Amino acid sequence: MSNNIVKPSILPGFMELTPKDQIDFNMMLDTIKKNYEKYGFVPMDTPIMEKTEVLLAKGGGETEKQIYRFTKGDSDISLRFDLTVPFARFVAQNMSSLNFPFRRYQIGKVYRGERNQKGRFREFYQCDIDIIGNGKLSIVNDAEIPAVIYSIFKELGFENFKIRINNRKILNGFFKALGIVDASAVLRSIDKLDKIGEASVKSELLAVLEEEQVSSIMNFIMIAGSNTEVIEALDKLNIQEEEFTQGLNELETVVEYIRAFKVPEKNYMIDLKIARGLDYYTGTVYETILDDYPSIGSVCSGGRYENLAEYYTNQKLPGVGISIGLTRLFYQLREAKLLKSKEKESLCDVIIIPMDGALAYSIDTANKLREAGIVTQVYFEEGKLQKKLNYTNKLGIPYVILIGDEEMQSNILTMKVMSEGQQYKKSVEEAIDLVLANS
Amino acid sequence: MSNNIVKPSILPGFMELTPKDQIDFNMMLDTIKKNYEKYGFVPMDTPIMEKTEVLLAKGGGETEKQIYRFTKGDSDISLRFDLTVPFARFVAQNMSSLNFPFRRYQIGKVYRGERNQKGRFREFYQCDIDIIGNGKLSIVNDAEIPAVIYSIFKELGFENFKIRINNRKILNGFFKALGIVDASAVLRSIDKLDKIGEASVKSELLAVLEEEQVSSIMNFIMIAGSNTEVIEALDKLNIQEEEFTQGLNELETVVEYIRAFKVPEKNYMIDLKIARGLDYYTGTVYETILDDYPSIGSVCSGGRYENLAEYYTNQKLPGVGISIGLTRLFYQLREAKLLKSKEKESLCDVIIIPMDGALAYSIDTANKLREAGIVTQVYFEEGKLQKKLNYTNKLGIPYVILIGDEEMQSNILTMKVMSEGQQYKKSVEEAIDLVLANS
Repeated sequence: MSNNIVKPSILPGFMELTPKDQIDFNMMLDTIKKNYEKYGFVPMDTPIMEKTEVLLAKGGGETEKQIYRFTKGDSDISLRFDLTVPFARFVAQNMSSLNFPFRRYQIGKVYRGERNQKGRFREFYQCDIDIIGNGKLSIVNDAEIPAVIYSIFKELGFENFKIRINNRKILNGFFKALGIVDASAVLRSIDKLDKIGEASVKSELLAVLEEEQVSSIMNFIMIAGSNTEVIEALDKLNIQEEEFTQGLNELETVVEYIRAFKVPEKNYMIDLKIARGLDYYTGTVYETILDDYPSIGSVCSGGRYENLAEYYTNQKLPGVGISIGLTRLFYQLREAKLLKSKEKESLCDVIIIPMDGALAYSIDTANKLREAGIVTQVYFEEGKLQKKLNYTNKLGIPYVILIGDEEMQSNILTMKVMSEGQQYKKSVEEAIDLVLANS
Repeated sequence: MSNNIVKPSILPGFMELTPKDQIDFNMMLDTIKKNYEKYGFVPMDTPIMEKTEVLLAKGGGETEKQIYRFTKGDSDISLRFDLTVPFARFVAQNMSSLNFPFRRYQIGKVYRGERNQKGRFREFYQCDIDIIGNGKLSIVNDAEIPAVIYSIFKELGFENFKIRINNRKILNGFFKALGIVDASAVLRSIDKLDKIGEASVKSELLAVLEEEQVSSIMNFIMIAGSNTEVIEALDKLNIQEEEFTQGLNELETVVEYIRAFKVPEKNYMIDLKIARGLDYYTGTVYETILDDYPSIGSVCSGGRYENLAEYYTNQKLPGVGISIGLTRLFYQLREAKLLKSKEKESLCDVIIIPMDGALAYSIDTANKLREAGIVTQVYFEEGKLQKKLNYTNKLGIPYVILIGDEEMQSNILTMKVMSEGQQYKKSVEEAIDLVLANS
């Protein structure tokens, strides 16, 4: 051939999966989607490109450097770096036609030109839900979010995970009561506790605060125990500060209703160390930790905010939401061998292998299996039987149906059950029943 | 508020749907996906960005002008303009680990900076399947493709559509037999027949061919009748040209096996006018026309090609595939009022409205409904009952469960069936049965 061959490769920092991995990835994605829908969230899909002035309305910061931005024609275009900003834009843009409380989920790719490093991706899936009120939104919504998280991770096959819950008003109120005016540096230190340890946080705080304040803070964030015990301990602090009291009431209400949602006690806990960034969240905050693999950090985070779309409308739109970074989660679970893999390169339940002259009969059999909802492939190619069985084995297809003269004359199929290494004689109806009974 | 408000808007030429439309769109997408999977195609997901040198390996043409291309750091990046080129790159890149025949589907967004005009989108979904052989691929695969198309459009609610089938070898062979060396101009004219009409095609052809050749061509492409009649007519032409004979044999085989797949005769036809572009397809070609709305053109097209990845590997990889341009299809169906809409702004089967003090009981009831697989929302906000019922009405949720003191004491729920305007007393089990029986 005289073509110039270009070496096939993708850009660095992008994830592309093999069929086997893609099947596993899609199982996770479908589980998340199904659970989001079960709680009444509606789907949304926004363009991957937005006007730069709209996407960056909030103004730059660290994110801006990572953004994929370019011009085409007269347009200054940026690729979305999360799903929250486009969602805020969407709600502000469609205010008059939306019904509140508005519950939406969005699962889609976002883009960040991060430094190329292991486990960091420049294109990754976020799976978000948010509940938005027009003017106000009941605190009970904050209790439903952990129920959604619980449903998802349970169905993904995890038993041991903990949804950590806090309330930003409790932290803010506590700091105010201590006489700390600007809590942002303190919050930033506390956020690092799991990473840098207690001693380092303490010395960071001592650089900006009095020793007494620091020991109060350390004692405070270390309050531990059952959810009831923590709330009792917070009550006993007897802090007469409005924001603190409001936050504590909210946390009590959230915990009360999480119980109504029947999230097991072992799967959630109050954790006063959780702060979640600095300026966006204003009330309840969440992180989710896999007990068997805490080092990967939070696998599902979010919280309550006062105002979704302040850069696009003067309308006050409080909300609560969470995000699962699926690409990173998938990568980390696979690296840690915690992925519940199907170990299959095919979605087929059945493959039909026709002998010479049995093609039409095989197609007819496949029609019947598919009508019964069974995912079926017919092997159309020529070649030795062993080659065809190897193909089946490699794809991990659990049932093989062989059809030749004998099968066509008797209307009885030869069916190999790969997991048993056994071969049976079955009518097409019996074959369908067998597959459905085991799927 | 002192913020500078940025007007929320999206780039021109991008589609963004309301919740109601998005629900309808996703129904279509899920139907396509489910049917692709039922025939044993595995999912694939490639990055939206590729190296420009890889994406444009084939070289420019019209497409190149439309491409979203930019640099970031050292990378010359382009957004994919179809799913075929990334697929070819993927297969060449992963040759050694793939099992052939390799069947994949991919549903994803692609980007073309087209001139902004009604019904044309710069970001749109393509839904592709392809079957790839290593070196060779049985012609029977070409007969399965129409079966997949039929399954999809049937399930999308269409009865009257026609999959038009032709074979490029028949056209090429026929032209060769007429002594036409370069058939590309002829093919280009024929491709326009539906748009510009018979007379215009004829005059275009007369500019480059002899009158006798033109009348032969016109007679040839007008051959019509049942599939059997068309094949008989082609046989009777008695053209002794190798490529023609091969094409005719292929077409006969394809039609024979389409029958085995039980695609109804009214849903497919041989149409010798179908050429599908100029250089990519080499055998069977497909277009799909909605009989009630032929003006929207083909809603699902594709064909057989000799060599998927010639720009990335010397390995010969023949294949057959189709693509559905879902964004455009959705838009056109909606414009033509042919969309089978659910007319719902929510996926919920049930909404529970708690009276004062009934929140925990309502949450518990919702748990039970969701466990039974029923999509359920609890209305947590305060407000008048009428406001809550209006919300329910606007979202189009079919069942409302009201829970107050009476319901909690008796454990009998009040259930409104919105389609009937009737109210019933039901235990939670009866309520579940009622919803499941009607869903």
